[in-house]
Amino acid sequence: MSHPDGALTVFPVRGIGEIHPGDPLVEVLAAVLLPGAGEEESHHHLRDGDVLVVTQKVVSKAEGQIVALDPADPDAKAALVESESVRIVRRRGDLIISETRHGFICANAGIDLSNVDDGTAALLPVDSDRSARGLREAFEHRYHRRVGVIISDTFGRPWRRGVTDVAIGVAGIAGVVDLRGTADATGRVLEATEVCVADEIASAAELVMGKATGFPAAVVRGVPDGWLRPSSVKDEIIRPPEEDLFR
Amino acid sequence: MSHPDGALTVFPVRGIGEIHPGDPLVEVLAAVLLPGAGEEESHHHLRDGDVLVVTQKVVSKAEGQIVALDPADPDAKAALVESESVRIVRRRGDLIISETRHGFICANAGIDLSNVDDGTAALLPVDSDRSARGLREAFEHRYHRRVGVIISDTFGRPWRRGVTDVAIGVAGIAGVVDLRGTADATGRVLEATEVCVADEIASAAELVMGKATGFPAAVVRGVPDGWLRPSSVKDEIIRPPEEDLFR
Repeated sequence: MSHPDGALTVFPVRGIGEIHPGDPLVEVLAAVLLPGAGEEESHHHLRDGDVLVVTQKVVSKAEGQIVALDPADPDAKAALVESESVRIVRRRGDLIISETRHGFICANAGIDLSNVDDGTAALLPVDSDRSARGLREAFEHRYHRRVGVIISDTFGRPWRRGVTDVAIGVAGIAGVVDLRGTADATGRVLEATEVCVADEIASAAELVMGKATGFPAAVVRGVPDGWLRPSSVKDEIIRPPEEDLFR
Repeated sequence: MSHPDGALTVFPVRGIGEIHPGDPLVEVLAAVLLPGAGEEESHHHLRDGDVLVVTQKVVSKAEGQIVALDPADPDAKAALVESESVRIVRRRGDLIISETRHGFICANAGIDLSNVDDGTAALLPVDSDRSARGLREAFEHRYHRRVGVIISDTFGRPWRRGVTDVAIGVAGIAGVVDLRGTADATGRVLEATEVCVADEIASAAELVMGKATGFPAAVVRGVPDGWLRPSSVKDEIIRPPEEDLFR
């Protein structure tokens, strides 16, 4: 829900612990995000209008998207990346930039070698929009909390150093908000201002999760109510090849 | 300053008003961000350890980076974009993706046609890192507030729809935070996790500024104290051509 003063609060979700294939992720999240029996609501509990950001890694683990991989065998890693890709975009040394079967263009097909047990790797969820919808609907129907859900992952970018978190799946929260045609402060009609708020929310969440601090989820509170609507990364964020100048 | 519970707060800076060439931006910001004579400190006032994010547009205006441009003449716009660029990377129709003289690769050389008076356009600041340093030092020496400063701008991305805000200048706040070598939650040493926190902070700030709401600045409170250190976009964020796979 939008704060009256326009502020946004971002806080990490604590106490999630290690996730294993088959774990009921929504129950794990609900256990730490909702008040227990007899417990009072606090500002750390999930509220209507909040956006819950969950990292790809715990979603992939819960969904069993874990495969064996010998970390000492670079050929095995390359073969796995290729098997998860529909097209190689660039390759330099060990680094492969490819288009995944989901339509993402990213390093190593989004395969994650950190925070998984030695000898295994975590693939991306099969359909991260569906994963987000599953969490959103469970929170609404089982726990009576209407929230947006973003599945986030960490991608590099051309031209700029460092990774940032982006949305790979969304539910109940806008991907791109179209401000075209809105008059700006001088009355001029803005041109082409479609803001990818889902990626910006994922980035804001990453700031409190950190890579090494072990918080695989965060809550973003205070986004405008109008952003809380049906959406998907596939339809709103992935740029179709015919619009893309860099494939 | 880092919140004890790991939370981050982002709020828009209100009351800045229209900025004109030559306006003393630091004084304008100080007037709304610091308590007046006899006024008590409130949570809306700038504190040590805060990160102040200021949009390119007001910095460009204050620095007089405004040029005449006939909005009805597409050739004039293309000529202006070319004059601000060192290299054209892609071109389709009216859209030019180029490398600016500052090293940014972005649409239309970062030239901004919105929120400026008709018949004019705002160029990027000559040196946004220097602009950020000027604001940071003025807040420290004249107003005794030690803050990080980010100059933000709105860039598109390959492969993903919608724009997001990124840092084009920083002072007193890290560009990229290197988590390589940090053990993750399972004790495995992370590989290649350099996070561009400056871009993530700029994106978080954009969520409360919006394009059409007229807030050209925001405060991000609660970043880890260790991120508040000397830095520059030029040295930390712009990827050198020899590292870049997409030039």
